[in-house]
Amino acid sequence: MPILTKLGFTGTVAALLANPDRASGLEKARCDRVTLTFDGIEGDCHSGRTHPSDVRTITQYQRGIEVANTRQVSILSEEELAEIATTMDLDELLPEWFGANLVTRGIPQLSFLPPSTRLMFSSGATLIVDMENAPCRFVAEVIEKHRPGKGAEFVAAAQHKRGVVAWVEKPGDIATGDEIVLHVPPQRIYAGAS
Amino acid sequence: MPILTKLGFTGTVAALLANPDRASGLEKARCDRVTLTFDGIEGDCHSGRTHPSDVRTITQYQRGIEVANTRQVSILSEEELAEIATTMDLDELLPEWFGANLVTRGIPQLSFLPPSTRLMFSSGATLIVDMENAPCRFVAEVIEKHRPGKGAEFVAAAQHKRGVVAWVEKPGDIATGDEIVLHVPPQRIYAGAS
Repeated sequence: MPILTKLGFTGTVAALLANPDRASGLEKARCDRVTLTFDGIEGDCHSGRTHPSDVRTITQYQRGIEVANTRQVSILSEEELAEIATTMDLDELLPEWFGANLVTRGIPQLSFLPPSTRLMFSSGATLIVDMENAPCRFVAEVIEKHRPGKGAEFVAAAQHKRGVVAWVEKPGDIATGDEIVLHVPPQRIYAGAS
Repeated sequence: MPILTKLGFTGTVAALLANPDRASGLEKARCDRVTLTFDGIEGDCHSGRTHPSDVRTITQYQRGIEVANTRQVSILSEEELAEIATTMDLDELLPEWFGANLVTRGIPQLSFLPPSTRLMFSSGATLIVDMENAPCRFVAEVIEKHRPGKGAEFVAAAQHKRGVVAWVEKPGDIATGDEIVLHVPPQRIYAGAS
């Protein structure tokens, strides 16, 4: 009766980042381990059971409406980061600049992971993917600060490589080097959308 | 920057059901209006911020582990119910027998709605689809009680017509007759799953 299917490969946690203070800016600092509660990463400014809606959901809600927080954890892939850097002709792109919380290694096309995919970490802690993230101008501004003249290239270069946002299904710790097991829902294209 | 796309059609709330007492059995009673909090339908036994994992997620968790409740609201479509009834050669199949909370009209192939689809109701209350529901033997037992000799046909007849489960993104009321606006995430098949 389970609906989810376990994938035949696993990923690895390449990096973890957190930032307790959103007012200090978008950038986060590396850490070796984070603790997930049902509200997100303990002590991170993205955490919270709910959050105010913003421009990302402007077709649904006016700004500032209290909605469930499905963006508790922002996830990037090392491979997609490298691809964006190559496209932009940059030596590197650091996950700190993206405000990301977690960087994966070994998950192909992370940004295309199906919504509702479960990411299970070594401790049993589990995240639910809400959906693909969108490249935004705030990251472009940070890149511009670190690599002057390059910020304007970011949004186009990062299309479909900006990772996914997720929220906590099961609390627990995540550590750098953890294995990531993936369970995905049935895949099909909904005909009613066309 | 929004990632979700509003669909070109809307559905309607055909029926609402709730049951405060799971111990009284799977069946629920009709009501004209329900109130959603962030925990689900107020006063319904499916509601809760978390719930114990069960056989549906046995490939991920042992039974009884506390996980986020993505099954707060169980949704069926009137059209898929009629198709199951036809396949089983039954005069009717009542949503009460399924333990459903909400019956839609006018959403084609409801059970195939993409995970992370947002269902917005007239009041602004919004549900997030977690995924397709699976036909289970508990419903088969209820059908057997009401239509003796027919229970055993249910699981096969209801494949991919058992609706979806969802949870609350934005609280508010839902009333019978409400319009349902749908916003879906980008659709694609994840190549990494094959």
